[in-house]
Amino acid sequence: MHFAMVFYIISVLIMVIGGFMIFPLGIAFYSGEISSAQAFLQTIIIVMAGGVLLNLFTRKRRGQQFSAKDGFLMVTISWIIASVVGAMPFFLSGIIPSFVDAYFETMSGFTTTGASILPEIQSLPRAILFWRSLTHWLGGMGFVVLTVAIMPLLGIGGVKMVSAESPGPTMDKITPKITHMAKLLWFIYIGMTILQTVLLLFGGMDLFDSLTHTFGTLATGGFSPKNASVGHYNSAYIDIVITVFMILAGLNFGLYFRVLTGNMGELWKNTELKAYLLIFVVTTIIAALPLVGNVYGNFGESLRYSAFQVASIITTTGYATADFDLWPSLSKYILFALMFVGGCSGSTGGGIKVVRIVTLLKQAVTEMKHLANPRGVFRTRINGIAMRKDFVYTILGFVSLYILLLLVTTGVVASAPGNYNLISCFSTALATVGNIGPGFSLVGPTMNYSFFPDYVKWFLSFAMMAGRLEIYTVLILFTPYFWRRK
Amino acid sequence: MHFAMVFYIISVLIMVIGGFMIFPLGIAFYSGEISSAQAFLQTIIIVMAGGVLLNLFTRKRRGQQFSAKDGFLMVTISWIIASVVGAMPFFLSGIIPSFVDAYFETMSGFTTTGASILPEIQSLPRAILFWRSLTHWLGGMGFVVLTVAIMPLLGIGGVKMVSAESPGPTMDKITPKITHMAKLLWFIYIGMTILQTVLLLFGGMDLFDSLTHTFGTLATGGFSPKNASVGHYNSAYIDIVITVFMILAGLNFGLYFRVLTGNMGELWKNTELKAYLLIFVVTTIIAALPLVGNVYGNFGESLRYSAFQVASIITTTGYATADFDLWPSLSKYILFALMFVGGCSGSTGGGIKVVRIVTLLKQAVTEMKHLANPRGVFRTRINGIAMRKDFVYTILGFVSLYILLLLVTTGVVASAPGNYNLISCFSTALATVGNIGPGFSLVGPTMNYSFFPDYVKWFLSFAMMAGRLEIYTVLILFTPYFWRRK
Repeated sequence: MHFAMVFYIISVLIMVIGGFMIFPLGIAFYSGEISSAQAFLQTIIIVMAGGVLLNLFTRKRRGQQFSAKDGFLMVTISWIIASVVGAMPFFLSGIIPSFVDAYFETMSGFTTTGASILPEIQSLPRAILFWRSLTHWLGGMGFVVLTVAIMPLLGIGGVKMVSAESPGPTMDKITPKITHMAKLLWFIYIGMTILQTVLLLFGGMDLFDSLTHTFGTLATGGFSPKNASVGHYNSAYIDIVITVFMILAGLNFGLYFRVLTGNMGELWKNTELKAYLLIFVVTTIIAALPLVGNVYGNFGESLRYSAFQVASIITTTGYATADFDLWPSLSKYILFALMFVGGCSGSTGGGIKVVRIVTLLKQAVTEMKHLANPRGVFRTRINGIAMRKDFVYTILGFVSLYILLLLVTTGVVASAPGNYNLISCFSTALATVGNIGPGFSLVGPTMNYSFFPDYVKWFLSFAMMAGRLEIYTVLILFTPYFWRRK
Repeated sequence: MHFAMVFYIISVLIMVIGGFMIFPLGIAFYSGEISSAQAFLQTIIIVMAGGVLLNLFTRKRRGQQFSAKDGFLMVTISWIIASVVGAMPFFLSGIIPSFVDAYFETMSGFTTTGASILPEIQSLPRAILFWRSLTHWLGGMGFVVLTVAIMPLLGIGGVKMVSAESPGPTMDKITPKITHMAKLLWFIYIGMTILQTVLLLFGGMDLFDSLTHTFGTLATGGFSPKNASVGHYNSAYIDIVITVFMILAGLNFGLYFRVLTGNMGELWKNTELKAYLLIFVVTTIIAALPLVGNVYGNFGESLRYSAFQVASIITTTGYATADFDLWPSLSKYILFALMFVGGCSGSTGGGIKVVRIVTLLKQAVTEMKHLANPRGVFRTRINGIAMRKDFVYTILGFVSLYILLLLVTTGVVASAPGNYNLISCFSTALATVGNIGPGFSLVGPTMNYSFFPDYVKWFLSFAMMAGRLEIYTVLILFTPYFWRRK
């Protein structure tokens, strides 16, 4: 293990995070929010001083060879420390007086979960709300920063890290072009941010609301500066813009890269893309049907709310335009089932990911063909190519650990003295491990996570991180094998 | 496809079922239950006449070569027709006036699920109650009859069928000894039936109650002739006897075979056995802790109820000595999590099966070792032997289809006009696909399935059958590939 190396990278990371706090600091000064300004200033000073010191102590080791183990350690520790740094303004300003709450909120931000411990949002200082949304934006593309952009700049081969950390299993290994690709991805991300912000401005939102909602959308996060989330605006135009951009954010960003480099043909061969869009359309229609007449007047209106909520849950964003916990069973159930799915691999979305679900089901069909004809040879094809066998093993391991983590998280929530009902416990696990945000019942879209005891909040912070870092990255640190010397 | 062959075997099967109706017929005469006696007599006459006719028409094809496809078709059609035959006494006697209800109850019996549509049980004729419990006993060892005993007698190689139909993936292929083994397994099953019946008689139960509860225990079924299930007796002795026999019924019957043939050493190497007993002990203790002081007076009493309910759920029996739906969250959650597990492979229990869960988790650990050390070679070991790779694929396919069936079943239940809560819908799916019986909330241990609309009952009957026949066997009939000619 190369700890010095690991902490060198972390020193750079926390200085970057500290640097981004300039924006909320500016807003605090502009809006005259004195205590927030103080908090951000204090944080920036502490973080920069700490970062520079850590950097000096670890600097000479930066050229070391990096092993897979170092990578896992670095990624996990980075997320833990980044969340401590990010939580400081919330805590120091006194806006979130409990440190565990501030940490939970920040972890929820960086992991793009969007679960909140804040019961009242609109009355908070704008600088604080801006920072809260900015953690989404930073976290959402965190895997690009860490694995494709910053690390090659630091002289570390990023390829190994990509397979360990990218949300989803199919990140092509384009080593020579990796810095170029990273720049292009950031260009796309920033371009989409500007585009969505402008479109929301057209819808009558002010710049602050447009920006913060865009951060929450593109990162598939879900923090809104409004108590009623996107439902606050009650505008069909805004609902549609955000629905479209949520769906775009749930796509594999590598596909945008291919479109920009002229590889349009690959789009139509992409199994995951086709499955993702098919699931979106079919579940939107099924969820809309029971709403007609019961909740909304006509099919068009039902479709608008259904599409928004389906997009919000499948991409693991977590915005709400309706209290879906009050919807008829079938509509509610569709959202429940989608909580197991998640966005595409290589997107900012969480969950199990569409490609994994599709692979598992295709593999099951292959097995059935084999059972019906034991002498036949059958292969599972993804994107038109027969899948490598070890790929299936990785998915199998991932899904097993994912379900295990869901069950353990549910158990931890159920162990709390509050004696919560089962669907609250289980949907809390789904919403945190899957980086979704809202669940059902006690953690429904109009509720928040403030009522949980501290130990549950710590565990949920861990669950959000493990979910965001593709389970393996975090759980591997708990295997004795990892710490054994060769 | 050899349809004549398939129906030849079914003709034998229904005559066997008709033959077993002699017992409830005798009870009906003895107890003076005239309408029940008539119903059983009518059924026996119809079934025997139909069986003989079908047998005559298909007899000359009995020697044909059997393909895997014929096997899948035969097993599924057998269960469907067996449930029609078994439902006739309920329907003809007027005790269950709706045919779908009678069919649901019988399917629940043969699949050893134990889900009931009867709101009031104790007042029913004894002959009917006896038949209801007897469907468990027959169904529980149905896979032995079909795959290991009857089929070789009919000249069909049973080995291929074993892999397709036994509940669990590890049924050794001991072709030459197969008839011998089948006889031994029946001997064990009948021996355990006698032993448990005698032990219950000692506990003060009458012969009728002892026999019916034994049927429900050894088949891991869960039908009780009492409204309050085993809780009716309120006896620690009876609770303990049934707990022990439920655990024994959830074991791989192949292990008893090995013990009888002197292979004791293999027991301690058996990964599944060790995991099963460990899960039982650990979850019993965890579930008991929140009960102390809240529900029961002391730890001993809490342990008694917890052990009974844990054994009942993990073995997928479904007996109840308490309304666990009112238990504290953590205890309730333990039962919820166990609903995903199920008994051992080769037992009469349902669910995913312990060996599959263990394999998935071990495979995940292997993957983590591989990620931490990409150049290392790691293998997943079960029973001390490195596992074959195609075995892992079959498990992966199974679990995927299992979860898919759970989600589809939940959706069908949620689509009903009753607008049931999510936990009712989801636990209905868990309880039927996993062949457990009771779930939570609307299908909790003191409730029943009578309130569902007919189409839900039909679908749940299908779900119980698919769960019992290891998913593949049934779902394979829905793939276009299955019906394609080579």
